[in-house]
Amino acid sequence: MVLGHESSGTIVSVGSAVTSVKPGDRVALEPGTPCRRCTPCLSGHYNLCIDMRFAATPPYDGTLTGFWISPEDFCYKLPEHVTLQEGALIEPLAVAVHIVKQAEVKPGQNVVVMGAGPVGLLCCAVAKAFGASKVVAVDIQPARLEFAASFAATHTFIPSRVPAEENAARLLKETGLEGGADAVIDASGAEPSIQTSIHVVRRGGVYVQGGMGKPDITFPIMALCTKEITVKGSFRYGSGDYKLAVEFVSEGKVDVKRLITGTMKFEDAEEAFRDVKAGKGIKVLIAGPNEKSCRCLGGH
Amino acid sequence: MVLGHESSGTIVSVGSAVTSVKPGDRVALEPGTPCRRCTPCLSGHYNLCIDMRFAATPPYDGTLTGFWISPEDFCYKLPEHVTLQEGALIEPLAVAVHIVKQAEVKPGQNVVVMGAGPVGLLCCAVAKAFGASKVVAVDIQPARLEFAASFAATHTFIPSRVPAEENAARLLKETGLEGGADAVIDASGAEPSIQTSIHVVRRGGVYVQGGMGKPDITFPIMALCTKEITVKGSFRYGSGDYKLAVEFVSEGKVDVKRLITGTMKFEDAEEAFRDVKAGKGIKVLIAGPNEKSCRCLGGH
Amino acid sequence: MVLGHESSGTIVSVGSAVTSVKPGDRVALEPGTPCRRCTPCLSGHYNLCIDMRFAATPPYDGTLTGFWISPEDFCYKLPEHVTLQEGALIEPLAVAVHIVKQAEVKPGQNVVVMGAGPVGLLCCAVAKAFGASKVVAVDIQPARLEFAASFAATHTFIPSRVPAEENAARLLKETGLEGGADAVIDASGAEPSIQTSIHVVRRGGVYVQGGMGKPDITFPIMALCTKEITVKGSFRYGSGDYKLAVEFVSEGKVDVKRLITGTMKFEDAEEAFRDVKAGKGIKVLIAGPNEKSCRCLGGH
Amino acid sequence: MVLGHESSGTIVSVGSAVTSVKPGDRVALEPGTPCRRCTPCLSGHYNLCIDMRFAATPPYDGTLTGFWISPEDFCYKLPEHVTLQEGALIEPLAVAVHIVKQAEVKPGQNVVVMGAGPVGLLCCAVAKAFGASKVVAVDIQPARLEFAASFAATHTFIPSRVPAEENAARLLKETGLEGGADAVIDASGAEPSIQTSIHVVRRGGVYVQGGMGKPDITFPIMALCTKEITVKGSFRYGSGDYKLAVEFVSEGKVDVKRLITGTMKFEDAEEAFRDVKAGKGIKVLIAGPNEKSCRCLGGH
Repeated sequence: MVLGHESSGTIVSVGSAVTSVKPGDRVALEPGTPCRRCTPCLSGHYNLCIDMRFAATPPYDGTLTGFWISPEDFCYKLPEHVTLQEGALIEPLAVAVHIVKQAEVKPGQNVVVMGAGPVGLLCCAVAKAFGASKVVAVDIQPARLEFAASFAATHTFIPSRVPAEENAARLLKETGLEGGADAVIDASGAEPSIQTSIHVVRRGGVYVQGGMGKPDITFPIMALCTKEITVKGSFRYGSGDYKLAVEFVSEGKVDVKRLITGTMKFEDAEEAFRDVKAGKGIKVLIAGPNEKSCRCLGGH
Repeated sequence: MVLGHESSGTIVSVGSAVTSVKPGDRVALEPGTPCRRCTPCLSGHYNLCIDMRFAATPPYDGTLTGFWISPEDFCYKLPEHVTLQEGALIEPLAVAVHIVKQAEVKPGQNVVVMGAGPVGLLCCAVAKAFGASKVVAVDIQPARLEFAASFAATHTFIPSRVPAEENAARLLKETGLEGGADAVIDASGAEPSIQTSIHVVRRGGVYVQGGMGKPDITFPIMALCTKEITVKGSFRYGSGDYKLAVEFVSEGKVDVKRLITGTMKFEDAEEAFRDVKAGKGIKVLIAGPNEKSCRCLGGH
Repeated sequence: MVLGHESSGTIVSVGSAVTSVKPGDRVALEPGTPCRRCTPCLSGHYNLCIDMRFAATPPYDGTLTGFWISPEDFCYKLPEHVTLQEGALIEPLAVAVHIVKQAEVKPGQNVVVMGAGPVGLLCCAVAKAFGASKVVAVDIQPARLEFAASFAATHTFIPSRVPAEENAARLLKETGLEGGADAVIDASGAEPSIQTSIHVVRRGGVYVQGGMGKPDITFPIMALCTKEITVKGSFRYGSGDYKLAVEFVSEGKVDVKRLITGTMKFEDAEEAFRDVKAGKGIKVLIAGPNEKSCRCLGGH
Repeated sequence: MVLGHESSGTIVSVGSAVTSVKPGDRVALEPGTPCRRCTPCLSGHYNLCIDMRFAATPPYDGTLTGFWISPEDFCYKLPEHVTLQEGALIEPLAVAVHIVKQAEVKPGQNVVVMGAGPVGLLCCAVAKAFGASKVVAVDIQPARLEFAASFAATHTFIPSRVPAEENAARLLKETGLEGGADAVIDASGAEPSIQTSIHVVRRGGVYVQGGMGKPDITFPIMALCTKEITVKGSFRYGSGDYKLAVEFVSEGKVDVKRLITGTMKFEDAEEAFRDVKAGKGIKVLIAGPNEKSCRCLGGH
């Protein structure tokens, strides 16, 4: 199967009814095409489409090819000052936009993000762009937190090997969030992070599960009940997310370029995958075989 | 400590500034008084008040006394055709109202309620009053389900000792809810029910934790993530809930009288508690010592 | 141009990819097909589609023909106990469903509906099905109000030729709504009704413009401002509205049959239009030329 | 009657139960105290309180006095780097915060603000702080627009003496908002501005009436209906608005200092009122008689 779903490219040809893009336009590619007819689609939640065709999700091939066919409304024109390299990072940025929307982050709120990998970092930046006052990045690797602080986080926190309640209490104290955080986003998928998160959310606050991990975990359900917390999943991206991601890059609100730690030729793609798997770098780009497209690698 | 928080009574005297009730008025009593000044209070979520004074919650005594002092806005006048006995059941009904509001039940939706105890039964009735089309009551006791079907449920289901996914699949098939339920309410607090619930909710649906049980359980977090489910706690009741509960009883939309399986004298209160603990009856009422009030017992 | 947009019929043939309906199925027809690609469509508001193809709206012909082509997701199967006659009335009922959704009517609320024509009557019934406690029908014709009271309204009101504030004050007093109505729906389009409505809505309440009338009217904008009222338009119907309308008829929550005051043959359609224009009857049906379809007439 | 409702000051003494402020603390003063008991109060909308005591609103005196008594939760501590002068401007900023919240402005949206007086200017700045991409300031005075552009607006527009539709069409064309604006805020109260606004809002967009003007105006109600626009009033400020206003000033997101065009002594207050009435300056401050407070003048 062909891999790849984080991509940008240049329009080569268009169908006769297409009006919004033309050959030569540089675009970010939204890699999933919904059926447009099921109940989720008609109600504005096409990311939950029951008949989605998503790149690199069996049986559908991915975008790591010479050419890619897309409906015009899933091609997002890049402004002149935005590069194809940045365009390839619109996909993970749209993931972060969707997560932060699910978290209902509002101006002046305080947000905690668990995990400072690519998606966690982008969630920090998007939370800031949504007007968050404090953004706490949490990770066990000091180097990642250092980057997070220079990128978008206002505070950082390294959890210890203690019970979730203890980590939560220390996090809230050290970051001056004694009443609890308005929103907590998990971009790690790690069981201890999820448990800590529930104890970090304030009464009536929101927790969003962004990261993927074990299917079943031990979960503090009664804390959720008595604090009347809202817990939400976040799945891919939907209506308006790609558009907003392009806007954030275009306006300079999120500097995705800083996440690019390398660029490889198409022929060296295998080596690129090996490097990323070994934890080297944040995001590695692969230049497309026709020199006009760009794909992006890197563990969420 | 004095017990009791499900109560009605007759106004004996009022302060000089009170205008909405007068001596002789029969009222349902909302048993918690919020501080009215903290952030949750000022934002319309007084059930999450950080300085709540709640009846029978240490250090505050309960309502099982001769007289009770309440702010006027937490006394809800009963219409003439509503009895004090029904008035004592406004409290658990308000619990159910709050749960169903948290579940965002809308007309035409399909709702599954786990547990057919008093709160589960009332959730079924409230879901119907909110316009739900199908209301599925789930319990392991056939007698409870029989009552549920005669009370408010349109369908019933008895789970087996099989994995949660299997129970979920069978429930959906037998009740014609193949796409999943719009909302699932847990009024049982039982771990297997909670697990089954998550597999019963449709993509983008809502799950509400109403019942109290173990603090930590094994939870299918990735199913929540990929279906983008919203999970919410529900804690007591807040703005408008008591008022709506009185309205439902007054309009005959919820027949709380059917839940009353006995009435005891104040002197026999201890026996009443023993009976309820032994699982006898649904709700047992205790007539107040001054013959003008009414309290209600019964495990949620 | 061919007229007609309130229709039901029997499926004659289906395309090869169609799975949800088959020849012989009786269906209600949603008469507008959205582009499924514009921003309103992708965000769940296809009624605001910028490239809608709507029956009997130039340049598109209407449904008053022998056969009609529709996408399968805009055909709504009628249960066996629902007739084609009722099916033709799903359209105006969907209009009312959309209006009541716009009005955010919640259980226990009090709703005032201006105008007791077909759409006003259906709004009364839908408000009841949404759980409204009081539903006040307002019209200048006593006969219409008599029907409204027998159909769905709990109270009725005949406005006088006095300033809007006076009518509003009398309406609120006579119906026991001293604090103002939670929601007011205009299904009349008449200027005095709209003005009265704004004075009838409570602080923080909702007003919905359902009826069509003069493009510009004198409007009490400062009353809207100081009471912080929300005013909304309602345009046709969108996601889930037809489905809920079919559900309401199927469950017996809205008895649309009572609105049918006559049935004409296809050949007599012109006469039917003349009668309706002359104000005879509420809704007149036209039996389709192939005996398998049904269209409905009648001024909103 | 004593005037004044835009004020800051220094705490002189506190009651025995007060814990959140202490003598010496510099605070912004929210000038209205709600009853905390009516339905709007309990549901989180205390700005709509039916028994509000608001400074300088008969029969209540205003804040232009030596000392002022306030509940502690309506005193907002100013961080050290925020001056009392800025503190006095928290009030009009809170007005703007409430308006922009009513407008539901989200990141990436395009907002048009009618009127570039103090509140209009602050609405521009708050819309930016909420993440708006384009913010169009509209006024008939070029000097005001020049200031707006230097303060927060990304675009400006001077309307002509032509029909509202024409001004709307030209505004949308010149600012590149061909599909209409997501939100339009009126901070002018002027009839032509309100009319133009409705034609400027996109399908499904929001219009907020912030400015006060004539009680009744000619209003394009059918445009509202067919575009399904939401129109809202905005009245004073409520839950969380003052807190967010302090946050915006503290974080440097809104530079209220730039609106201060003069400071007068308490003895010269009358002259200050005359100047403001004559249109001199944007906001003029009056130093309190005890040198520890600060009030702010200036037409909205």
